Amino acid sequence: MIGGGSDAFIGAIHRRAALMENQIELVCGCFSINPEISLSSGRSYYLPDNRIYSTWQEMIQAEASLPQGERMDFVTIVTPNRFHYAPAVAALEAGFDVVIDKPMTLTLDEALSLREKVYQTGRTLALTHVYSAYPAIKEARERIARGELGEVRRVFVEYSQGWLSERIELKGGNNAVWRNDPKQAGKGGCVGDIGTHAWHLTEYVTGAKVTEVCADLLRVVEGRVVDDDACAFLRYDAGFTGLLQASQVATGEENNIRLRVYGSKCGIEWWQQQPNTLYIKWPDRPTEEVRVGNGHAYLSDMARWNIRTPGGHPEGFIEAFANIYRNFAMTVRAKAAGEELQPEWLDFPTVEDGVRGLQFVETMVQAGYCAEQKWHKWVEK
Amino acid sequence: MIGGGSDAFIGAIHRRAALMENQIELVCGCFSINPEISLSSGRSYYLPDNRIYSTWQEMIQAEASLPQGERMDFVTIVTPNRFHYAPAVAALEAGFDVVIDKPMTLTLDEALSLREKVYQTGRTLALTHVYSAYPAIKEARERIARGELGEVRRVFVEYSQGWLSERIELKGGNNAVWRNDPKQAGKGGCVGDIGTHAWHLTEYVTGAKVTEVCADLLRVVEGRVVDDDACAFLRYDAGFTGLLQASQVATGEENNIRLRVYGSKCGIEWWQQQPNTLYIKWPDRPTEEVRVGNGHAYLSDMARWNIRTPGGHPEGFIEAFANIYRNFAMTVRAKAAGEELQPEWLDFPTVEDGVRGLQFVETMVQAGYCAEQKWHKWVEK
Amino acid sequence: MIGGGSDAFIGAIHRRAALMENQIELVCGCFSINPEISLSSGRSYYLPDNRIYSTWQEMIQAEASLPQGERMDFVTIVTPNRFHYAPAVAALEAGFDVVIDKPMTLTLDEALSLREKVYQTGRTLALTHVYSAYPAIKEARERIARGELGEVRRVFVEYSQGWLSERIELKGGNNAVWRNDPKQAGKGGCVGDIGTHAWHLTEYVTGAKVTEVCADLLRVVEGRVVDDDACAFLRYDAGFTGLLQASQVATGEENNIRLRVYGSKCGIEWWQQQPNTLYIKWPDRPTEEVRVGNGHAYLSDMARWNIRTPGGHPEGFIEAFANIYRNFAMTVRAKAAGEELQPEWLDFPTVEDGVRGLQFVETMVQAGYCAEQKWHKWVEK
Amino acid sequence: MIGGGSDAFIGAIHRRAALMENQIELVCGCFSINPEISLSSGRSYYLPDNRIYSTWQEMIQAEASLPQGERMDFVTIVTPNRFHYAPAVAALEAGFDVVIDKPMTLTLDEALSLREKVYQTGRTLALTHVYSAYPAIKEARERIARGELGEVRRVFVEYSQGWLSERIELKGGNNAVWRNDPKQAGKGGCVGDIGTHAWHLTEYVTGAKVTEVCADLLRVVEGRVVDDDACAFLRYDAGFTGLLQASQVATGEENNIRLRVYGSKCGIEWWQQQPNTLYIKWPDRPTEEVRVGNGHAYLSDMARWNIRTPGGHPEGFIEAFANIYRNFAMTVRAKAAGEELQPEWLDFPTVEDGVRGLQFVETMVQAGYCAEQKWHKWVEK
Repeated sequence: MIGGGSDAFIGAIHRRAALMENQIELVCGCFSINPEISLSSGRSYYLPDNRIYSTWQEMIQAEASLPQGERMDFVTIVTPNRFHYAPAVAALEAGFDVVIDKPMTLTLDEALSLREKVYQTGRTLALTHVYSAYPAIKEARERIARGELGEVRRVFVEYSQGWLSERIELKGGNNAVWRNDPKQAGKGGCVGDIGTHAWHLTEYVTGAKVTEVCADLLRVVEGRVVDDDACAFLRYDAGFTGLLQASQVATGEENNIRLRVYGSKCGIEWWQQQPNTLYIKWPDRPTEEVRVGNGHAYLSDMARWNIRTPGGHPEGFIEAFANIYRNFAMTVRAKAAGEELQPEWLDFPTVEDGVRGLQFVETMVQAGYCAEQKWHKWVEK
Repeated sequence: MIGGGSDAFIGAIHRRAALMENQIELVCGCFSINPEISLSSGRSYYLPDNRIYSTWQEMIQAEASLPQGERMDFVTIVTPNRFHYAPAVAALEAGFDVVIDKPMTLTLDEALSLREKVYQTGRTLALTHVYSAYPAIKEARERIARGELGEVRRVFVEYSQGWLSERIELKGGNNAVWRNDPKQAGKGGCVGDIGTHAWHLTEYVTGAKVTEVCADLLRVVEGRVVDDDACAFLRYDAGFTGLLQASQVATGEENNIRLRVYGSKCGIEWWQQQPNTLYIKWPDRPTEEVRVGNGHAYLSDMARWNIRTPGGHPEGFIEAFANIYRNFAMTVRAKAAGEELQPEWLDFPTVEDGVRGLQFVETMVQAGYCAEQKWHKWVEK
Repeated sequence: MIGGGSDAFIGAIHRRAALMENQIELVCGCFSINPEISLSSGRSYYLPDNRIYSTWQEMIQAEASLPQGERMDFVTIVTPNRFHYAPAVAALEAGFDVVIDKPMTLTLDEALSLREKVYQTGRTLALTHVYSAYPAIKEARERIARGELGEVRRVFVEYSQGWLSERIELKGGNNAVWRNDPKQAGKGGCVGDIGTHAWHLTEYVTGAKVTEVCADLLRVVEGRVVDDDACAFLRYDAGFTGLLQASQVATGEENNIRLRVYGSKCGIEWWQQQPNTLYIKWPDRPTEEVRVGNGHAYLSDMARWNIRTPGGHPEGFIEAFANIYRNFAMTVRAKAAGEELQPEWLDFPTVEDGVRGLQFVETMVQAGYCAEQKWHKWVEK
Repeated sequence: MIGGGSDAFIGAIHRRAALMENQIELVCGCFSINPEISLSSGRSYYLPDNRIYSTWQEMIQAEASLPQGERMDFVTIVTPNRFHYAPAVAALEAGFDVVIDKPMTLTLDEALSLREKVYQTGRTLALTHVYSAYPAIKEARERIARGELGEVRRVFVEYSQGWLSERIELKGGNNAVWRNDPKQAGKGGCVGDIGTHAWHLTEYVTGAKVTEVCADLLRVVEGRVVDDDACAFLRYDAGFTGLLQASQVATGEENNIRLRVYGSKCGIEWWQQQPNTLYIKWPDRPTEEVRVGNGHAYLSDMARWNIRTPGGHPEGFIEAFANIYRNFAMTVRAKAAGEELQPEWLDFPTVEDGVRGLQFVETMVQAGYCAEQKWHKWVEK
């Protein structure tokens, strides 16, 4: 693991998600840019000192020199965005598979280059777009794919948070500092941090790709360098349209993701904060509450593959994360063993999604600040 | 009452709303363009035959010739849009006050002309934008006005229905027939029928006015003449921005109106399908469920003026409607008696809102179909 | 109307409910035990002074002496419980039909005697158990009756309020004063005021009758004379059992009524505070949200008869009340005209429900305070 | 681990919960009464064959003979109830700490004897009453303890499931088979399986103990040997009363646990199926939605100790389970190291709760089937 020291949020989630399924062990790490934090963190994770490294370069080199079976099997990169690309490339070159948090890289150029590296090395790269790993989303995707909604017509996705409603980046000591700095986080603020999740959810669930956007990017709180709110009309290659709404200044919101897809036959709705229900809305019969639970025979196999508990025993964010790690681990193990890959193991975001994610940010930033002519004055007459 | 025969939906709502508060009696009407339906409807409403009319022209003339105290006090117009303007003008000229369903007229020109007529006659005109008459919306408006949200930053409003997800206008015998015909309903389809409600709600609750839009109007279901889905980015004169989303092809939705306003201090949320709760979302303390109920001392006087029951005894759509009628009746009665008008009596939409409503439709239609250059291609690179 | 002065809560609800459907007009009343309040109330309801009475005795006598067609058609009694019996008897004897709030009388003896009087006079008496008049409850009853739940097995009903969590009866000037006085309200406190509603709901919806109870009546707040909390296990004649829970000291609750019925095939749930949804819970398919709305073809005719608006336009407490008045009015009118009575018109609580209500209170009070031997000590061993 | 083969439900939950926090590794096990299943299960968990055992006796003996540091640190027992006592005693005697699923033993006598054994050996025993390990429940307990509710007055707890609404025990191959057999599961059916969870939740959250019950135990589905539905009025040593309702024949319910506590100042409500919100209901201000999330400064330290994610990133059942394992592991490790124990580490159910659980079943069974005199006939008069 690179990053994820005891002072970091997402690293701890990654560790729990990786360990939960008894498929993965934490064997080494460089947990911080600060060697002391890296050491103390590693010790608190019960690692021996010789597997705790001061730099990621050192780690990759040292691990690569260990005998097969003793060295790590793959690397998880949970550092700020600007420290994604270099360790990922180094790991791939040293023969390690990679798990990486989104956005995949700082820039689109890095993303394209990383994709090239994945192609060259033939290794596996997983990107942790966690929201598409919830079982209810798998169920939605299956139902859309098998035509239950009829022809898809409209997609609405929203991701609202309120944690940037004040300029907490000025206080320091939090994630907002680097996220509001384009050199560390990339061109997109809100659009990169959470807009990408929202966008990815729509492509994952419908299987279609965005082709055009009409966007509005805002710096709502005065003084902010990057966008803290972003919305867009979307056009998809499958012929339908959508609306994306992302905000980090929606005061009082926690992590409010809502996805709706309306087809010619029915509509579906999912809300991440109560993730175990998928609502199916019919024109002529009652709305159905499709519940996540491994006892529910009405669920698709793909949904059930991603469920651990019977209905009414709620699963959450960490379990969704664990689905990505479990699938990645099974894929990597099978590839190493030369075994046949099951389709459900391959169900995790890849370097392709990573490239599209950076393209999304680029597209939104280009579209969102220019095109003042898109605005139409109120007709006073 | 003009319109509202026994075959009509909204007329029955108007009658219940008008009668409920014991301020208004139904004394006469021309209930249908078909004299037989008008007569049978009027009889079923327990009216004597001599107060049931075959045409609205006849009604206004006959009633105007009755002695003061016997004739009707005001006219309610609940016909399809194209039959709003002429009877309204005639009623005003004959000295009657007017209640009219939205949109106020077929065209913006008619609206401007009707406004002129109201100015000339000095009579009272109420427009039934019912959703802003819910007590929770009154409470929201009061809280925003007194600064509880801080500076308003973002407004999100949505109005989703699914009843036009099929081309039911082809079957005939329903509201969709005239609503999908610009000659009968005006230029806007969805944008006129429900978009206006959504837009009005934002202006009512924030007290600000839209100045610019970036819109997308869609004819989602093939063959439709007017828009059946409309969305827009909005800019307001108070400096904040918003997002409006309206659809009549959201399959499986009933009458899904959701309003959110985010300020620098907190956010608020209201959902029309469960209208008796207003959520106040704070960054640093729990979300509060502000409940409508006349026993709740924490509510504003304006909210309480519009509430009939203690908390937990739900009020609904008809009561919201009745608030408009009650306020209108008290205003009209006080004006007639030369008494001082209380501010809470004047709290109903007027001819000014009607004009702005038609301007909104005009603006959206102009903005929504053109400006193809507002779209930005996906950056493939 | 007897009672319902401008200082009373439930009277205003009755008036709105009665007027809303354009079937009933308010023509006279004795609105208070205080003649001045009666007069000022009547004037504020736009009644002429000669139809505003100082005593109910005077009103019944005077109205009875008016010619048919001019006099009132029926009397609504909305006084405190101890003033129900005498005016009801007098009204029946004078040839008027009666609407009366629950509990029907102060004592069981009065109830039995009133029933006798109804039998003798052949007049119509309606009791306003409003909660069974909600359309979702009609739908539930129909579904149970047609066997959709299979064999009914368990009924759970709860009615929680918090308004008596302090001894507000000591402050005076509120309903709690007479409700906590057995001489004015009868033997039951909570059990009479709200327990009867909960019990009635179960009998209405299942069509079965309670035969035995094991009850616990509590005076939770010290110093209280009558029960402020009541719960019971119930046995019904149809062979199933139930659980009733009523409290007026559930601090922070408004008017929290929840009904559930579990059968061998499915379960249903209804919550009065969001009354327009009936949940149908299946063992092997998703929970269905059956929605109240006159456009929903899946609803029973009986439910639709009690609905005024399309789905998503919420109806509430006053509309439920209005269903009772509308049905009563149609019954009374048809009886007067010698017309055939439609089954849906007869769907309102009658004097029989009133007698059973007083029996319920009697049964609960007898069972709830004695039988200390029903308690079993914790097995320490 | 004893039990928890690949064909078992709860074992997999225990493993995930134990592993998630990186405090515990799975090192050995006897996963089934069937040695072949034990072996194949163990292999699928990546254990070496020499740490997979055919019997629990063999496992305890073999592990005890391994050198300190190589042998297992503790045993988890996740077998059917009748196989709890013997391995637990053996493990304690061999010097191992124990985690055991509830109910702790088959009989109350076993429970008392096991408690004795824990006292003698001085070892640590944790009982997995998972529902009291949810962070929202910790928050509720803290608030009650610090007097925020005022004096506690009423406790309502419900646990409804529907999976036994048919006699699936007759089909075989499921948990219902042994659970419906008193020799395998103990005297209580529903009361033992889920009633104990409900009861424990009330004692945990209030800190009070039940002293008396008035109970009704039912065998709703014909032919069933043990109760499948249980309800009771409860009296607590702290002076308040409660109501417990448990059912496994509530057709269509999943795992519906709802806890409410009403005090003199406010009431609280928690619903396990959406476990990350605790509702605080006030008489004079809006209901508050207290949300689980490690960024919420308004939460108690105890709640925060049991939270892994920021608000809006839902945690669930497995995380609650993991709280017990984490606390147990920290306690065991500190005891072994002779370090001081932090109060928050000791926050897990112990052998005392296990004994009280068996007493609860005994009390309910004694009270629930007898005392026919607790029933009171309907007063017909």
